[in-house]
Amino acid sequence: MTRYRVAIHIEPRRGILDPQGKAVAGALHSLGFGDVVDVRVGRYLVLDTDAPDADTARATAARMCEQLLANPVTEDFHIATVEPA
Amino acid sequence: MTRYRVAIHIEPRRGILDPQGKAVAGALHSLGFGDVVDVRVGRYLVLDTDAPDADTARATAARMCEQLLANPVTEDFHIATVEPA
Repeated sequence: MTRYRVAIHIEPRRGILDPQGKAVAGALHSLGFGDVVDVRVGRYLVLDTDAPDADTARATAARMCEQLLANPVTEDFHIATVEPA
Repeated sequence: MTRYRVAIHIEPRRGILDPQGKAVAGALHSLGFGDVVDVRVGRYLVLDTDAPDADTARATAARMCEQLLANPVTEDFHIATVEPA
């Protein structure tokens, strides 16, 4: 078993309203960042996990997203990187 | 001006307690993912913004993090990617 560090992006599905993103965009406009046209706020998870190889670590992380980490109705997830920790 | 899509990672600074990450790790253990040793939960932001070039878009996003998006005491941010939208 090797320890891997898996980085995961979870973001609101395109087309689904993201009120937190709208609020952040409004706050950025108020601060003078008027060129911002859209903001979407998701989660960034970094997992340290033991696995026999990187492919297994990636597949296990995807199952974690399906079962717990991401909301399958409103969110998309993406395993960004899998690297030895 | 070109429209750029900027992806930002914001994560709890290493060494600072991350109670949300601990809770997620415990829940993963309960679901049978016993090989998980650590979880850190941060935010993943995707900004669409207009800028004259990619370097300016990146620098502006970093200022947004410093002024609003990241907590300078407890969080680190990293501009992950800057791509034409």
